[in-house]
Amino acid sequence: MSLSTQPYKGARDFYPEDKRIQKYMFGKLREVVESFGYQEYDAPILESFDIYAAKSGEEIVNEQLYSFEDKGGRKVAIRPEMTPSVSRMVAARRQELPYPLRLYSIPNLWRYERPQRGRLREHNQLNVDLFGVEGLDGDAEIIQVADAILKSFGAKSSDYEIRINSRGYMNQQFESFGLSDDQKHLCLKLLDKQSKIEPNEFEKMFIEKLGDGKGSQLLNFLKSEEVPKPVAELLRVLNLSGVESAAYDPAIVRGLDYYTDIIFEVFDTDPENNRSMFGGGRYDGLVGLFGAEPVPTVGFGMGDVTLQNFLEAHGLLPGLGPETDAAAILIGDVYAKAQAVVGEFRKSGLKIAVDSSGRKLDAQIRSAVKSGVRYAIFIGEKELQSGRFQLRDLKNGTEKELPKGDIVSAIQESRAG
Amino acid sequence: MSLSTQPYKGARDFYPEDKRIQKYMFGKLREVVESFGYQEYDAPILESFDIYAAKSGEEIVNEQLYSFEDKGGRKVAIRPEMTPSVSRMVAARRQELPYPLRLYSIPNLWRYERPQRGRLREHNQLNVDLFGVEGLDGDAEIIQVADAILKSFGAKSSDYEIRINSRGYMNQQFESFGLSDDQKHLCLKLLDKQSKIEPNEFEKMFIEKLGDGKGSQLLNFLKSEEVPKPVAELLRVLNLSGVESAAYDPAIVRGLDYYTDIIFEVFDTDPENNRSMFGGGRYDGLVGLFGAEPVPTVGFGMGDVTLQNFLEAHGLLPGLGPETDAAAILIGDVYAKAQAVVGEFRKSGLKIAVDSSGRKLDAQIRSAVKSGVRYAIFIGEKELQSGRFQLRDLKNGTEKELPKGDIVSAIQESRAG
Repeated sequence: MSLSTQPYKGARDFYPEDKRIQKYMFGKLREVVESFGYQEYDAPILESFDIYAAKSGEEIVNEQLYSFEDKGGRKVAIRPEMTPSVSRMVAARRQELPYPLRLYSIPNLWRYERPQRGRLREHNQLNVDLFGVEGLDGDAEIIQVADAILKSFGAKSSDYEIRINSRGYMNQQFESFGLSDDQKHLCLKLLDKQSKIEPNEFEKMFIEKLGDGKGSQLLNFLKSEEVPKPVAELLRVLNLSGVESAAYDPAIVRGLDYYTDIIFEVFDTDPENNRSMFGGGRYDGLVGLFGAEPVPTVGFGMGDVTLQNFLEAHGLLPGLGPETDAAAILIGDVYAKAQAVVGEFRKSGLKIAVDSSGRKLDAQIRSAVKSGVRYAIFIGEKELQSGRFQLRDLKNGTEKELPKGDIVSAIQESRAG
Repeated sequence: MSLSTQPYKGARDFYPEDKRIQKYMFGKLREVVESFGYQEYDAPILESFDIYAAKSGEEIVNEQLYSFEDKGGRKVAIRPEMTPSVSRMVAARRQELPYPLRLYSIPNLWRYERPQRGRLREHNQLNVDLFGVEGLDGDAEIIQVADAILKSFGAKSSDYEIRINSRGYMNQQFESFGLSDDQKHLCLKLLDKQSKIEPNEFEKMFIEKLGDGKGSQLLNFLKSEEVPKPVAELLRVLNLSGVESAAYDPAIVRGLDYYTDIIFEVFDTDPENNRSMFGGGRYDGLVGLFGAEPVPTVGFGMGDVTLQNFLEAHGLLPGLGPETDAAAILIGDVYAKAQAVVGEFRKSGLKIAVDSSGRKLDAQIRSAVKSGVRYAIFIGEKELQSGRFQLRDLKNGTEKELPKGDIVSAIQESRAG
């Protein structure tokens, strides 16, 4: 019996053509976040189970966590999100680190769930976090980074909407209505599910759970169009920072338990795909869970599956060919002798794949075409003696005999063009 | 009770200064292998348990594998090596892929073992594999890539030694001595442990396990200085390819069960650290385990922990500062107003971290110095009106007042220098 060639369910194999897209996306992400002064960090994909039990929310911990006991009896988990890991790392060096501290990572994350469009069991997620800035300017920067990322891929402001709310403001309102902690929690849960429920059903549930008086008060508050002061101020700063697609939305809640104030979600405005792509917010309490003095923190996570869907839907992914510049096609048994000239091509910066299969010329050429490489360079005894080589453009079939240096410049020019 | 700030035992947190080193190393690895036409792929860190049970060797599967049942009752494992995954992927598209197929990846791998110098529970390992080339030219290329990588970091040929053997040749010899399959396996196991055993003890074990006659024959064969023909031919090609540190070593075996012919290991020649750093070889049978027609394959894996130890021991790691070019120090409450000019700096390619903490000037400057950033740019009302800004070099304390454009060029020049 032979082994299955399928990857684990809900997880992805990346063949070079897939990996190229990921590398393109991650390259842009790194470029943008680094332009804002963020620096990359990383942490192990296995963490102690406890760090999720604390604050990641019931659904994740009870139903979606890949957790098990290691051979030493430690309860461990494959990380479902990065925020607990980065909070742990900041707590470990709370005193030594320089603030404002700007950190980013693109970790691989796992959740056990039913695979569906835009949601797999594993994905990579850009995590961008700003530690040590208490005020709205920090919130503004984080949202500005999210906006700059989408624009860097060529998205227009009208392609997406950044919906902002304030948990801090909501909590104040909940308190003014006299809600208990349990009721507050319940309200957030209901709001989080709002988009999946019929409006009538939603209102009925509110009244049912909170009683006539408080329920109606809350529903009125949720319908009010008045923008809370902190959100209005944030929108003003965002506007001055060139962020045009931000707006207040009292229905934004975010599933995770640890958010403490400003939260936001970015929606695709395409009517075919009008859903939340990613989001984030302020979570000032998490570092404190690790025994360190709390650090004000705001951040967001952006998954690569959702991002790629968005870019594809809006036609924003470029065609990407292989990184390899040329296939060296060997005429006769010249592998060893060809090494010197191939070495020179490589030193000049060319990426050259040598066909060392020993097959006939046409088989070598067919493979080169199949691989998608742009050029073929023919190398045989005659060429090695004369120092002149045939360069064939496999895209349009043209061929030229050129000395080494001209081959290098011809390929470099075509790359730039 | 607060949560521990420690990472999981034997695993690594990468703060920006650690991640920078990793990025530097991975950047070089990518550059070199891509210059040989290799393309990056990836696969999930979770795989079906079965693909390791088949060929990864008893020690790994029984003692070192992180395996568990998922919530759907599937037996899964966190990958301890990449070779089974890439073999699976090639088998899945056996017919469509172009050969010679050159693939590389730098996966994160896990083994449950006692952490020690150069061996952690997790590491990243460059995997370079060439599929579809049967002959020695393929073996030569793979060894040439390993050699080119070490040289790209500035290592001299005398800093390391590439020891080569042929399992194919050994098997022929074993057969000519009339060894059974079990005895062959036993021989390889003994040889694999040779470096950890006293020479006398080693010979005694050989005689004990294989009997006087065969045992002595084998010991003589192992002491023979005659280079087997295929290894001699490989050394000739390597020599023409500029690989100077390769030599035959009959004691090289490699622990893994799947190697079929040429194998090699790279040793650090430093007497303080004279040990095997990494290796590889030919494993023609692995793709076939997945029900596809076998593909001749040769490859190697190079771990990042060992590589970093080698580079540090030989003084080959450069000093690496933060990627951020400058901290923008805000004078007064000008965060929103400063966005336009900071945005222009970023568009010109500068990486700028804005201090949005609202603290006093000297606290902002202290943080900037602590962060290791080279420059500080001071931005207040006056500067925004005049369009001229103080640029302070935090390394030597010099300060200049410059218009925007000159700030960009000053920083870009200092980067190049």
